[in-house]
Amino acid sequence: MTIGMYQASVPVFQRLLKALDAILDKAVANATERKIDPAVLVAARLAPDMYPLSRQVQIATDHAKGCSARLAGLPVPSFEDSEKTFPELKARIAKTLEFIATVKPEQVDGSEARDITLKLGPRELSFKGQDYLLFVALPNFYFHTSTAYNILRHNGVPIGKLDFLGAT
Amino acid sequence: MTIGMYQASVPVFQRLLKALDAILDKAVANATERKIDPAVLVAARLAPDMYPLSRQVQIATDHAKGCSARLAGLPVPSFEDSEKTFPELKARIAKTLEFIATVKPEQVDGSEARDITLKLGPRELSFKGQDYLLFVALPNFYFHTSTAYNILRHNGVPIGKLDFLGAT
Repeated sequence: MTIGMYQASVPVFQRLLKALDAILDKAVANATERKIDPAVLVAARLAPDMYPLSRQVQIATDHAKGCSARLAGLPVPSFEDSEKTFPELKARIAKTLEFIATVKPEQVDGSEARDITLKLGPRELSFKGQDYLLFVALPNFYFHTSTAYNILRHNGVPIGKLDFLGAT
Repeated sequence: MTIGMYQASVPVFQRLLKALDAILDKAVANATERKIDPAVLVAARLAPDMYPLSRQVQIATDHAKGCSARLAGLPVPSFEDSEKTFPELKARIAKTLEFIATVKPEQVDGSEARDITLKLGPRELSFKGQDYLLFVALPNFYFHTSTAYNILRHNGVPIGKLDFLGAT
């Protein structure tokens, strides 16, 4: 067993996205129990100028599919960012999981020095595959999954860190 | 260049802990500017039954030093968990950075299949090095650094995601 670019990326995204999906289920159940409109939680934020839950889930899935595709040298699937409900957010996670399950270890392994270019508006940022994975994709992915968790936790959804980490 | 256990762990902890240290500086500056007792921010939480900022920083540093030491086969340095101020939290980050800077790539590389045992109260959890890094240490580290960020952001400290990600 040696760590490789595939092992350090796709299975991590899979574990955490399945955990996030289960967290969204708990949020829906809790909203029902407390007679809260689930839309309130989907639109909840930790600060007025931070993104709401829906956008946190969108960006987390963007990093998962973007990183998996870019490291594999595949086109990045484009999703519409129109999710407004828990079922829609869960469908986005499902679509992301479906895509990254098609990415094969042999496409990603060996991508340490692959040139990765990200377009941010008019700017282009270039990275080698390993730096992109370790210092862009994973920290962003974890930032947005953690923030999604924190938004729900802050709003009283009964979840704990094991929900975030997923089955071990 | 190939990804290795060292590259996937120590430099990641270093980048994010330096970023967290700079975030704490911004929190202190902002507290001063708003005439807020910095102790209020150190004790701030996102939910009454979540850990405050101080504990988030303690646990984040615990995972950084614990993971670096365990993968290298070194004893884990023990810190006292007594920090109550920003200077004390910054000192803890500095101590952590000082320790992990002594961990050498050749001690960590090749630790994919090393047996790692964690004691959680009366329980013992066993992992192989790679699973411990990818599914325990890194997600926990990111969870607590993100939550520290979110606590401060929620309390009005003017920080953005680039502060979290650190210099690129």
